[in-house]
Amino acid sequence: MTKIPYKINLSEDELPKYWQNIRPYMQEAPDPFINPVTFKPCTADDLRPVFCDELIEQELDNTNKFIEIQEEIRDFYKMYRPSPLTRAYNLEKALGTPAEIYYKFEGTNTSGSHKLNSAVAQVYYAKQQGLTHLTTETGAGQWGTALSMACGYFGIDLSVYMVKVSAEQKPYRKAVMETYGARVIPSPSDTTEVGRRILAENPGTGGSLGCAISEAMEVSMKTDNCRYVLGSVLNHVVLHQSIIGLETKLGLDKYGVQPDIVIGCAGGGSNLGGLITPFMADKLEGKNNIHFIAVEPASCPSLTRGRYAFDFGDTGQTTPLMRMYTLGSGFMPSPNHSGGLRYHGMSPIVSKLYHDGMMEARSVEQTKVFEAATMFCRCEGTLPAPESSHAIRVAMDEAIKCRETGEKKVIVFGLTGTGYFDLAAYQAYNQGTMVDYVPTDEDLEKGFATLPKVEY
Amino acid sequence: MTKIPYKINLSEDELPKYWQNIRPYMQEAPDPFINPVTFKPCTADDLRPVFCDELIEQELDNTNKFIEIQEEIRDFYKMYRPSPLTRAYNLEKALGTPAEIYYKFEGTNTSGSHKLNSAVAQVYYAKQQGLTHLTTETGAGQWGTALSMACGYFGIDLSVYMVKVSAEQKPYRKAVMETYGARVIPSPSDTTEVGRRILAENPGTGGSLGCAISEAMEVSMKTDNCRYVLGSVLNHVVLHQSIIGLETKLGLDKYGVQPDIVIGCAGGGSNLGGLITPFMADKLEGKNNIHFIAVEPASCPSLTRGRYAFDFGDTGQTTPLMRMYTLGSGFMPSPNHSGGLRYHGMSPIVSKLYHDGMMEARSVEQTKVFEAATMFCRCEGTLPAPESSHAIRVAMDEAIKCRETGEKKVIVFGLTGTGYFDLAAYQAYNQGTMVDYVPTDEDLEKGFATLPKVEY
Repeated sequence: MTKIPYKINLSEDELPKYWQNIRPYMQEAPDPFINPVTFKPCTADDLRPVFCDELIEQELDNTNKFIEIQEEIRDFYKMYRPSPLTRAYNLEKALGTPAEIYYKFEGTNTSGSHKLNSAVAQVYYAKQQGLTHLTTETGAGQWGTALSMACGYFGIDLSVYMVKVSAEQKPYRKAVMETYGARVIPSPSDTTEVGRRILAENPGTGGSLGCAISEAMEVSMKTDNCRYVLGSVLNHVVLHQSIIGLETKLGLDKYGVQPDIVIGCAGGGSNLGGLITPFMADKLEGKNNIHFIAVEPASCPSLTRGRYAFDFGDTGQTTPLMRMYTLGSGFMPSPNHSGGLRYHGMSPIVSKLYHDGMMEARSVEQTKVFEAATMFCRCEGTLPAPESSHAIRVAMDEAIKCRETGEKKVIVFGLTGTGYFDLAAYQAYNQGTMVDYVPTDEDLEKGFATLPKVEY
Repeated sequence: MTKIPYKINLSEDELPKYWQNIRPYMQEAPDPFINPVTFKPCTADDLRPVFCDELIEQELDNTNKFIEIQEEIRDFYKMYRPSPLTRAYNLEKALGTPAEIYYKFEGTNTSGSHKLNSAVAQVYYAKQQGLTHLTTETGAGQWGTALSMACGYFGIDLSVYMVKVSAEQKPYRKAVMETYGARVIPSPSDTTEVGRRILAENPGTGGSLGCAISEAMEVSMKTDNCRYVLGSVLNHVVLHQSIIGLETKLGLDKYGVQPDIVIGCAGGGSNLGGLITPFMADKLEGKNNIHFIAVEPASCPSLTRGRYAFDFGDTGQTTPLMRMYTLGSGFMPSPNHSGGLRYHGMSPIVSKLYHDGMMEARSVEQTKVFEAATMFCRCEGTLPAPESSHAIRVAMDEAIKCRETGEKKVIVFGLTGTGYFDLAAYQAYNQGTMVDYVPTDEDLEKGFATLPKVEY
């Protein structure tokens, strides 16, 4: 058999020309969004004041299996894609496992994560629609950075509302966004009504993602030629992220490799959804029996301990209602170094697949995650993001099982990004001061109490 | 003609199996090192207490044109090499130039720079020799990070003496090295005689590279099975870095492209020396007439304003004397955000080639460098290291000249690394607080006054 290289690189010609939409393959599509005022399914017109037209079409499209990636988006992708698919020979050796481990690495661009795959598409459509301004929020900063890059490239004015405590803890994230030309406003701010109200009520607050979303949405509604954009959860974001899975499948196919297990970390679910799309589509058509595993932090266990219910996407309770696994929009996740996984809900697509029994979910504690991250970077050279390291942890656990059973399983996981901006977390782990938080049942009940009553 | 892809990726099979040694191609080799006590040329035995045996052999080898890269080193290389060679289509378009611009990107590994190419080789040879400990110094942190990765991989105990002020300014650099298992000691420290002496004399000092070198060398001499390793300047480091140039040439050859101009930034000279090696070898054999440009900061202009003289490699004046372009080991470079280019001397190989008229040197001011860096990252997506951005600046200047003359020159430059740990510098540039420093002639005279008198 052909020796599999350390890195499976695809050529530019092999860059997918279509995204794949998982919804048409599902026996039953995810429930529609519900308008929180009328309690009726959202129409395109309901969404138009907030989102770009093309993205709304993609959001509501349960029919088309493949959607073309425009030439301009492909040209941008070519600056950093196809991304490498790596055989983790050194990790396999260190673990003494007969398993084959592969990871798809999305951190080879400055934004440092997979978020760029959707950012460039969203900005392109905004530009096509003649929009000149965009707003968004960012917590950990990956999404804000990716969107800043895309806006810098296409010449769109961008305002990023960044959770104040993150902006203070990560001044360099702010500096990157500003270098790409974005305006970064620590939230809550005095630039919006909601911000001023929150500041008056809580003068010393460090802000929250919910508040940043509310500020970004308010500004987008009040600004000419402006829309609000979001980096995860939504169907069109999962669609754009299918490029990850499509390239992964192509790379593995080239060497005749068929995965037994596919693993991804899950915060809002876009990376996981994108990674599994082509494999899951085949599974839904009965063509494989791959074991999919979603990994989430024990501190924010939406899939493993949440409810499948209609809920708001933001803490401010202003978005349409989505049926998803959720801890309740009022759930306050405990401190955790994986900012990108601290979200109360989960992509409706991923939620539905999980609800239908098509995948497993596991939660892991952060010290176990950093133990895996440290071993990984010593073997494989790349310093992984804490978020991505959730997938590493479970991939290692599965490989260790194979060592015990002697099975030669093929394990594939998504390495969504690098940890260059998360070194305070590594520092805490190195110094032994990192703590694990697991919410009690009472903590969860408080979150569930904020779920809306929906009749549909 | 074949359309040149955005990224020219070589396969693992195309990874060079030999490093190329530029010295046998030179009409006259660089002068030998001089023992600062006997004033006679250094022998291998003079160097043995400090350096690994195999590296000494490579250091003194003026004869062999190609030196084999061992399988174990190649296996490590495969984790991040061949590195991408990128056609800067977007930058060309933004500049409106008829020139073709290519850059070889060495920042796709966690250490974030080309330093890893030599680190892995040096650690491998140390391991082969049965050594168990290594020491080194680091200023900006790229070299310390690269060496930590390599030592983590091969299981060698590493002590990194990090200039105290850098350790304080860049706590995250320290965290990365510790994650790879290295011990990081802010220098001056109380762990060495020289450190204690300096601390007693200057209680509040922030340290210097010269002092960190002295501490690292002292510890290596006093520790069993230990040697000291260095990340630039020396001939064997330039040799290891030839992998950059070899891959670049191979990639360009694949598409029938012949460069007109090759540009690299120059601090200690290892990246520049490695990048130009195969092209310069051809030029020395009369096979091309490529224009080579070394770019250095105006604040530390060793090539453009220094003297070609025998000098110490360290401020502590303990190393062998090397004939090179130097500002004097006592020269104090003004503050500049390109820590990796703040070195008083220059690789003897690069110095000799420059002295023989084989290349041009230019110095640039840092605000001009960050102007170029900002434009580059908005067009090409990658946030460049300040050091690398010196090469970007001159590549852009040359491309702009082509716009004026209409010439379709092929410009190739080395993008040595990423700027993820240099965001304080970008912040200063964004906020308009960055200042340019250029030493006066009097400043230079003070440095030259520290040059040793050598009779040879």
